[in-house]
Amino acid sequence: MPTDIEISRAATLLPIADVAAKIGLGADATEPYGRDKAKFDPAVLPPRDPGKLILVTAINPTPAGEGKTTTSVGLADALNRIGRKTVLALREPSLGPCFGTKGGATGGGHAQVAPMVDINLHFTGDFHAITSAHNLLAAMIDNHVYWGNALDIDVRRVTWRRVLDMNDRALRAITQSLGGVANGFPRESGFDITVASEVMAVLCLASDAADLEERLGRIIVAETRDRRPVTARDLKADGAMAVLLAQAIKPNLVQTLEGNPALLHGGPFANIAHGCNSVIATRAALALGDYVVTEAGFGADLGAEKFFDIKCRQAGLTPAAAVIVATVRALKMNGGVAKADLAREDVAAVQRGGVNLARHIENVRQFGVPVLVAINHFGTDSEAEIDAVRAIAAAHDTQALLCRHWADGGAGAVDLAEAVVARIERGGGDFRPLYADDLPLLEKMRTIATRIYRADDVAATPAVVAQLARWEAAGFGHLPVCMAKTQYSFSADPALLGAPVGHVVPIREVRLAAGAGFVVAICGDLMTMPGLPRVPAAEAIRFGADGKIEGLF
Amino acid sequence: MPTDIEISRAATLLPIADVAAKIGLGADATEPYGRDKAKFDPAVLPPRDPGKLILVTAINPTPAGEGKTTTSVGLADALNRIGRKTVLALREPSLGPCFGTKGGATGGGHAQVAPMVDINLHFTGDFHAITSAHNLLAAMIDNHVYWGNALDIDVRRVTWRRVLDMNDRALRAITQSLGGVANGFPRESGFDITVASEVMAVLCLASDAADLEERLGRIIVAETRDRRPVTARDLKADGAMAVLLAQAIKPNLVQTLEGNPALLHGGPFANIAHGCNSVIATRAALALGDYVVTEAGFGADLGAEKFFDIKCRQAGLTPAAAVIVATVRALKMNGGVAKADLAREDVAAVQRGGVNLARHIENVRQFGVPVLVAINHFGTDSEAEIDAVRAIAAAHDTQALLCRHWADGGAGAVDLAEAVVARIERGGGDFRPLYADDLPLLEKMRTIATRIYRADDVAATPAVVAQLARWEAAGFGHLPVCMAKTQYSFSADPALLGAPVGHVVPIREVRLAAGAGFVVAICGDLMTMPGLPRVPAAEAIRFGADGKIEGLF
Repeated sequence: MPTDIEISRAATLLPIADVAAKIGLGADATEPYGRDKAKFDPAVLPPRDPGKLILVTAINPTPAGEGKTTTSVGLADALNRIGRKTVLALREPSLGPCFGTKGGATGGGHAQVAPMVDINLHFTGDFHAITSAHNLLAAMIDNHVYWGNALDIDVRRVTWRRVLDMNDRALRAITQSLGGVANGFPRESGFDITVASEVMAVLCLASDAADLEERLGRIIVAETRDRRPVTARDLKADGAMAVLLAQAIKPNLVQTLEGNPALLHGGPFANIAHGCNSVIATRAALALGDYVVTEAGFGADLGAEKFFDIKCRQAGLTPAAAVIVATVRALKMNGGVAKADLAREDVAAVQRGGVNLARHIENVRQFGVPVLVAINHFGTDSEAEIDAVRAIAAAHDTQALLCRHWADGGAGAVDLAEAVVARIERGGGDFRPLYADDLPLLEKMRTIATRIYRADDVAATPAVVAQLARWEAAGFGHLPVCMAKTQYSFSADPALLGAPVGHVVPIREVRLAAGAGFVVAICGDLMTMPGLPRVPAAEAIRFGADGKIEGLF
Repeated sequence: MPTDIEISRAATLLPIADVAAKIGLGADATEPYGRDKAKFDPAVLPPRDPGKLILVTAINPTPAGEGKTTTSVGLADALNRIGRKTVLALREPSLGPCFGTKGGATGGGHAQVAPMVDINLHFTGDFHAITSAHNLLAAMIDNHVYWGNALDIDVRRVTWRRVLDMNDRALRAITQSLGGVANGFPRESGFDITVASEVMAVLCLASDAADLEERLGRIIVAETRDRRPVTARDLKADGAMAVLLAQAIKPNLVQTLEGNPALLHGGPFANIAHGCNSVIATRAALALGDYVVTEAGFGADLGAEKFFDIKCRQAGLTPAAAVIVATVRALKMNGGVAKADLAREDVAAVQRGGVNLARHIENVRQFGVPVLVAINHFGTDSEAEIDAVRAIAAAHDTQALLCRHWADGGAGAVDLAEAVVARIERGGGDFRPLYADDLPLLEKMRTIATRIYRADDVAATPAVVAQLARWEAAGFGHLPVCMAKTQYSFSADPALLGAPVGHVVPIREVRLAAGAGFVVAICGDLMTMPGLPRVPAAEAIRFGADGKIEGLF
């Protein structure tokens, strides 16, 4: 069985100009980055009727793997295969984790975007630019304090940390500005991974360059001694940050292994942020294609909810359909089977774990979005198990389509593509966010917890309640909320698989992302700087004797 | 008078493919980065007789400015103008300082390389890749200790810091790995600016990708409890670091405002490192052009000496000529005139300060390299002052050529170009490094101090002497030395202008750069992480109403 990278290398890519031409982008409109990547300025796109937006989401992730990106690629290839001009809009992968445990984030098997190595390593430099913009703001905070602190920043209340696109646990908590007078005023601080930066979320939610600069200016970095917020604009950092992001804000065009256009742009965390590719790329894809396939991070409880309530709300997008990716293996894990036993047929376990899928189907429907299920096929799946998944879908008034895109590329997802098109053409969708803008912040959290997570309630500390009241008084009450909860369970307890009930969602801490435009509710342990494992992938990554990169995937 | 950025914007750039074609690089050989930048793989270059290598260096820098990069660009344009196929090989600018006080590093007036904004901001991502490779190694050190420390690394003796391409004094000295068991073992550390990274020096001295990986593996990052060196190879980081640098190692092709080819590649500090663009780019330029103009950092005491003794020695390069850039203003400052009084004619001060120029002329001759002087013209220069410079050069058996490339582009440096060609064609050069490989390390430092700086001696602490002896015993005695001394004076005291004698050069600390292949001798305060000024340039950098970037230059 060839590996992902072997399949990727064996593929013949189209010149990127030919991919651009497929969606009407001429040579004047694109800037090449190497031979297989290009950026373009969406401002040059002609206005046209927007395409249909299809969200690919998933059941709660398990170690068995669901294949959401792979299914997104397969579906886009299949839609193109059945004559629907389709553009893929996905997140860019983060560099740091490539050296830890995970491989790349470009799909798998015969459903991949390419060039795989470039996309995973540096790509067109967007994340490096975000790192620079973020850290310039950090340097300007300490520099402001150093030279007299005219804004009266309380150095104990600087919330803006620094970022690196690297898995480096040693930087999670530091003391900085040590070493004497020339180095400033010592204080505690730390680093997050770049995808956790609010600059990343800002870039992904901005509608254009002007909105980007405006949002950057609104970022709150600290409080003064008398507890007034200090913004990037107060520090006069917003202009330079926007300049640093001048190229990063333009979407990146690459292709699937079948030569179909894919926009990879932005990649915020799906816990502390909203976990979707950029609004700019999604809108560009809608202007360029008749169908757009996009995905959201983690399972539908986190990813789809944030896609609908944050991204679609802010950007005025109307999704036409959602596809929930499930695998027989992951449903069996939700049904209590250990990872080592997944190869053994167990229809009853699929049925037990199916409650997880069923709840996600019901949840997506709450947003008024038509929903289908994609069964991402594995070789160990039995026909009876697959039928069990189909039965779950049918019991919830929808269809589950078996997909073999991993093995067969777009041809393996034609059934899904046809079902999606038929469902969209049948109509009846009526998209609406889950809650209104004017609901109080805590009520927004409670609404998500009770209606999506099916919790009995939320439990917020008095400090959280007081903080939310202060932000509401300061005019931030209209913002949507961004839940930072474990991705493994509907509840805040990662061990509760399936469809737990009777739980309470703790709101341990809240953070205001005034630039991105949401309030983060932290419902458990939040890791914003990963570490490397005992044997990091980096140890095996190198150039082989043939000059090709080994060990990366 | 138009500003540099206005001149740059008004210029019509050639398509980068046309620039490549001028030096025989076809579309197959280059990878475009946007419309005005390209990378190419030097491995594809056909073997040919190498061109003539011309080093542009300078008198000791003063706040009055010398214009070394500007003169390099002007000379290259002038050589092309007189029919000599010439390729420019320069350093890439660092991103961080653009937000502090200095403008870009792409020349000035009508002698610039373009596209100016791109080159100064992110360019083709080389420095970001170096940052990633450097910090991956740092993360792998702490990760190794975290998971059991099989190599027995002494965390008190980890010398490998982290880097960012940002002026951020708050990161100079930190304590890291705070916060408990999950974050590792607390220790002191800090960040340098990316150009100070040994990875930068390694990239600039590597002859090809294989040599790069080999050198990365040799980097020493720490000592064990029993004082054995720990290398990047011991940590199995070298392969992944090389992979991260796969694109960064390829030279970048851009153009001068007159459409002539310029390779900008690498940019190590000129104090803690050797301050020259990459060996790979210089060799590529020599394969592509009949003449190559390159420059070295700071004045000739530091820059030219390191260019000859480190870069040319390691790479087997033979410079054909050197041009020392001087200005009337800077010579007057060396002659004791205050900066505020530079506009007033003062021939005597030029003559007094001329001792600085004279010594640099003599010094370059010690390397067997023919030398000329370029007078970079300023509007305030009087004819008598210019004649005084000419007289200094004549008294030292060479010529000083007046250059007006800043105002007139290549046409303003034709006299210099013709003199350089004539001097090279006359022959008589006999390049040799200043000292032999087998001289003891301290003797190498003494040789540079007494013959180039004209000091009476060096003064090394017993700790330094002992350390050098240990390195010699460990097999590093053959390495050249890299002096980290103030650029403002021949001595270690920045206030001693002109041509000081009777001084002693302190060797306060030595560092081994085993990957780059030199021993650093620190002769004074060494700043490897700049800070931002009271009013950082960043505050004025932004997009103007016309969508163009303001405040950057």
